[in-house]
Amino acid sequence: MKFVVIGGDAAGMSAASRAKRNWPDLEITVLEKTMDVSYSACGMPYNIADPERPIDDLVVRPADVFRKKQGIKVLTGHLGEKIDRQKQNVHVISRDGSSFEIAYDKLLIATGAHPILPDLPGFDLPGIMALKSLEDGRKIKQYIKDNDVKKVVILGMGYIALEMCEALRALNIEVAMVKPRATFIPWLHPEMADMVKNEVESNSVKLYPGHKILHAEQSKGRLKIVCDDLALTADMVLAGVGISPNSKIAADAGLELGLSQSISVDKMLKTSDENVYAAGDCADAYHVVTGKKTWIPLALRANRSGWAAADNICGKQVRLEGVAGTAVFKVFNLEVARTGLSPKEAAEAGFDPAFVTIKSRSRAHAHPGSKTIQVQMVGDKKSGRLLGAFMVGEEGAAHRINAAAVALHNHMTVEAFSTTDLSYAPPFGPVWDPLLTAANQLIKEI
Amino acid sequence: MKFVVIGGDAAGMSAASRAKRNWPDLEITVLEKTMDVSYSACGMPYNIADPERPIDDLVVRPADVFRKKQGIKVLTGHLGEKIDRQKQNVHVISRDGSSFEIAYDKLLIATGAHPILPDLPGFDLPGIMALKSLEDGRKIKQYIKDNDVKKVVILGMGYIALEMCEALRALNIEVAMVKPRATFIPWLHPEMADMVKNEVESNSVKLYPGHKILHAEQSKGRLKIVCDDLALTADMVLAGVGISPNSKIAADAGLELGLSQSISVDKMLKTSDENVYAAGDCADAYHVVTGKKTWIPLALRANRSGWAAADNICGKQVRLEGVAGTAVFKVFNLEVARTGLSPKEAAEAGFDPAFVTIKSRSRAHAHPGSKTIQVQMVGDKKSGRLLGAFMVGEEGAAHRINAAAVALHNHMTVEAFSTTDLSYAPPFGPVWDPLLTAANQLIKEI
Repeated sequence: MKFVVIGGDAAGMSAASRAKRNWPDLEITVLEKTMDVSYSACGMPYNIADPERPIDDLVVRPADVFRKKQGIKVLTGHLGEKIDRQKQNVHVISRDGSSFEIAYDKLLIATGAHPILPDLPGFDLPGIMALKSLEDGRKIKQYIKDNDVKKVVILGMGYIALEMCEALRALNIEVAMVKPRATFIPWLHPEMADMVKNEVESNSVKLYPGHKILHAEQSKGRLKIVCDDLALTADMVLAGVGISPNSKIAADAGLELGLSQSISVDKMLKTSDENVYAAGDCADAYHVVTGKKTWIPLALRANRSGWAAADNICGKQVRLEGVAGTAVFKVFNLEVARTGLSPKEAAEAGFDPAFVTIKSRSRAHAHPGSKTIQVQMVGDKKSGRLLGAFMVGEEGAAHRINAAAVALHNHMTVEAFSTTDLSYAPPFGPVWDPLLTAANQLIKEI
Repeated sequence: MKFVVIGGDAAGMSAASRAKRNWPDLEITVLEKTMDVSYSACGMPYNIADPERPIDDLVVRPADVFRKKQGIKVLTGHLGEKIDRQKQNVHVISRDGSSFEIAYDKLLIATGAHPILPDLPGFDLPGIMALKSLEDGRKIKQYIKDNDVKKVVILGMGYIALEMCEALRALNIEVAMVKPRATFIPWLHPEMADMVKNEVESNSVKLYPGHKILHAEQSKGRLKIVCDDLALTADMVLAGVGISPNSKIAADAGLELGLSQSISVDKMLKTSDENVYAAGDCADAYHVVTGKKTWIPLALRANRSGWAAADNICGKQVRLEGVAGTAVFKVFNLEVARTGLSPKEAAEAGFDPAFVTIKSRSRAHAHPGSKTIQVQMVGDKKSGRLLGAFMVGEEGAAHRINAAAVALHNHMTVEAFSTTDLSYAPPFGPVWDPLLTAANQLIKEI
């Protein structure tokens, strides 16, 4: 059997490796348009922060290891450009200009996503960059070095934008962040978003939310981002306004698309064509809280859905119930974590949400070094179900959130969650974990 | 209605406060034999480690606050000595020598537990101490100061013994630990127990497991612990060989006892007498994994069961499904965490256990500062259920364990747990959380 994978990062290489382990005789070809496979994309901000570390530190397994040790045909520099579902083949364009067709019995689309660049005048100027692939990271790192970058304007204030802002400050580069929307982190409770905002600003970052971006221009050898009521000058501009699934190849082949133009897949990662699967940032998923489709492109889902697609292609029958939308990021000294739905998202999904926000401590009463942890917890008034949890704190948010995530997978009520036996020792938290304190309070509201 | 509480620490004061909030007219009397109520017992090792901090820092709420702000009659220095279930009263002995009877409609026994002192010659010598109450902590702290303690022998190697060992080393006191059993931490996989052992020994602590203790004696102004093949000299001896429930008052009153002589309670915290409840370290609990009774005296359960008993006494009908045995402790630079059953405990409970131990990292591939995390995960071959998880690492064990704990409350299979959406960002872990890696491996074994 011939298994072809389009895209050689998290989902694609996870699938190829897994399929080969499942079925050593399988003929597997991976088409990767860049020269890199299997790297830690999420590690790029931290790598960029350290000029001493080569970007290739982030490569988890080089293409040659997949080729020689696993017998997977990895074609880097090869773009899977068009799928012919009737003939069951993929039209491939190589970097050397040649092109050919490759036949498949089963196909996995793992094309990932691309960063959105504002569709505005001037955004094709040199020095305006975005971060998604390792090639992007390599270019940014080189650009900073070659151009002695002293100031960067970041468009957007999402988690990648914030991680990059921290990385640039570590390099002592001046940073300003600008975006059209007035709210700093819209999915976070205002008080908790303020905690993050203060942390960012106290690291000498200038934040300009609520400014409509009009165009970019060159001005005296520098770049200028012109807004309706503001102009920001910089040596480099980083677009961090979001990403969009690389689903054109699927749409062109007549495959069904879902939310945000992601490729629609069932719980077995199958598209609307039974011989074609999709996994990773290009594909959608079910949300375990709403039971409905969602598109939350994150690394764990990419790896896991790659595995599951491979298992199903090999006849193993693996179903993924879905994602809880669990995510965490670090920004300077803060951990920001979420799982499930915000009150607004919950209302939109048809729940009758109630929520509380509480302040707790990261360590026990009287234990030295304790920090504030803020928690928002969301529940459903009708069913009593836990719907979401959000945490911000200097320590103890990143892993704590997982207890709530597991509760969401199990459709626990807030009351049942409030009686779970969580760990306690003075260096690690109060007797009542901040999540339990939030749950105890939320019970009263629902 | 008259509500009497015997014992004024975690469970007792939680119950008294909660009952008063539920029912402001309730007449509540708390009998506490020591002079302290509502303190963080678990914080004592960390307080003892710092000579500058008064031990009373650990008091969460002084008795007068309960008296004046909440209208709870708190009788410190009053021992609840005997229960007359027919007459519904408690015989009370005061520190001033007087005694009286106090009548109850509903009674809560929250007498806690006491540390076990070896029943061997010489263990009543001055300088041989144990740590449980704040009075114990006060005495130990004073003894160290007054006697210029340079060397301590700790009997036992459980978590309190290890926390105290760290505290004493912080005071630059020489520490030797001795116990009869040859295995260092019997419930931990040998490889993980070795990781802890190495950490303790690398902090210049001498460990002597497998030595039968024969007697204690005084020798040239110092203390000597004499074992069958070893004698250890010290300025102070700390017994950390375990605790035993303070259940004599319940047994004398004819109430049913359970495991380890703990007071047997149902899921509503009721004893075998419908007017008498028990909560905290003196009472047993159901285990959410086995569904059977267990006795795991820990702080969260004490607080929570105090609340639940109060709610039930006030007619609220609260059921606690039970404990998962989740626990964590810090010893020097290591976090040691557990939830659920070890393979041995699982086999004893009638499961057919399989387990894996894996090594993972506390941060992402190529992220600086990453440390080793070891995980043991236990599952049931028959049902596929997750039964337990154990973690040791320099960072990231304490809160991670809670995800597995919540899974245990929900009787998740290992396979279902392996598909949960846990958080990921490079500073906080690998894409596949160590718990997920363990689950992925364990699936193959069951």
